[in-house]
Amino acid sequence: MNPTITAFEQSPDRGQGLARDMRVRWALEEVGQPYDVRLVSFAGMKERAHRRLHPFGQIPTYEAGDLTLFESGAIVLHIAERHGGLLPEDANARARAIAWMFAALNTVEPPIVERSMAIILERDKSWYAERQTMLDDRVRARLGELSNHLGDAEWLDGEFSAGDLLMVTVLRRLRGGGGLENYPNVGAYIARGEARPAYQRAFADQLAVFTATQTKG
Amino acid sequence: MNPTITAFEQSPDRGQGLARDMRVRWALEEVGQPYDVRLVSFAGMKERAHRRLHPFGQIPTYEAGDLTLFESGAIVLHIAERHGGLLPEDANARARAIAWMFAALNTVEPPIVERSMAIILERDKSWYAERQTMLDDRVRARLGELSNHLGDAEWLDGEFSAGDLLMVTVLRRLRGGGGLENYPNVGAYIARGEARPAYQRAFADQLAVFTATQTKG
Repeated sequence: MNPTITAFEQSPDRGQGLARDMRVRWALEEVGQPYDVRLVSFAGMKERAHRRLHPFGQIPTYEAGDLTLFESGAIVLHIAERHGGLLPEDANARARAIAWMFAALNTVEPPIVERSMAIILERDKSWYAERQTMLDDRVRARLGELSNHLGDAEWLDGEFSAGDLLMVTVLRRLRGGGGLENYPNVGAYIARGEARPAYQRAFADQLAVFTATQTKG
Repeated sequence: MNPTITAFEQSPDRGQGLARDMRVRWALEEVGQPYDVRLVSFAGMKERAHRRLHPFGQIPTYEAGDLTLFESGAIVLHIAERHGGLLPEDANARARAIAWMFAALNTVEPPIVERSMAIILERDKSWYAERQTMLDDRVRARLGELSNHLGDAEWLDGEFSAGDLLMVTVLRRLRGGGGLENYPNVGAYIARGEARPAYQRAFADQLAVFTATQTKG
């Protein structure tokens, strides 16, 4: 039986693939595992039935047999541990790839999400412009460090891994005014991720959900 | 040979155990693995030699033989995978414990760190009070969800795991005015973590670093 994931019935990103189900879709496509999708509304995400799957009332969740998981990072790691292609076989290289998964979600993502949230929630506040400068500086510091690490390498550490998968999804949020223009090697890195056939299939599938809701509405 | 971790030469928390080396120290104490500590200054953290270990110029790092890791979450997971006591043996329970590790670092920690950073960096800004209310609300939402999940359980999912270890270290930052008083079961959960002998040893060791620098200064 295929695993089932949850995704937004109406993604606030309008099909840009920034919602966190994209990470899980991409991982499942990379390893060739078919899956089913259950769409949930914003109201439904906060209801008791969904909170039994996800205590924080978010998407994605992952159900396979009697296992239920939440947190996109944990789901991607679970998939990577059970299929080839997302983690190196060498034990040390595997540990380093997992370190990049945590780096993507715990070091690089927080300032990027904070900046996105301020754009949405604080745009009409008196402090918006001054604070956005502070947030841009924080994002720029991380991008500079990542750019230095990458140099002219193709991926973060050897072959493409689940660490790259998460990092690319985190960085994509900076497209269009997020400061990527000053770090061409980071831009090229994101583009390499997006060019992967598995990414393309995952992106098309999440976009199809958005397009369908538009047609209905 | 013992693994070597890095920690702040002078922790900005003045020995409260909020720096991220505490997580790694606690994990190593839980599994009974002795370790060495190399202290780094703020200037040293940003130098090339340290950046070879940690691309983002932070602590902790972890060196064991020819393996170097960064990111406290990844280091704790690496330790948990190689020793008993921090992850359940049952495969599904193990995957869920790892989900709680990611939840601690990617869902619960970001609003808590954001709130702490605003207290440090934005205290003199005109918007401080208004924005702090917004940040408190975000933290409160997560605490409420965590409190609902915990109920009267001792740990997040069955036995104590690396998920609890990370969650307790994340939540400790709310001590003293962070809104914990409204969630007594979450407060009791933190206290249960802090009461563990392994936590106590790790805490004493990081405090001794701070005390030594005070005596010298």
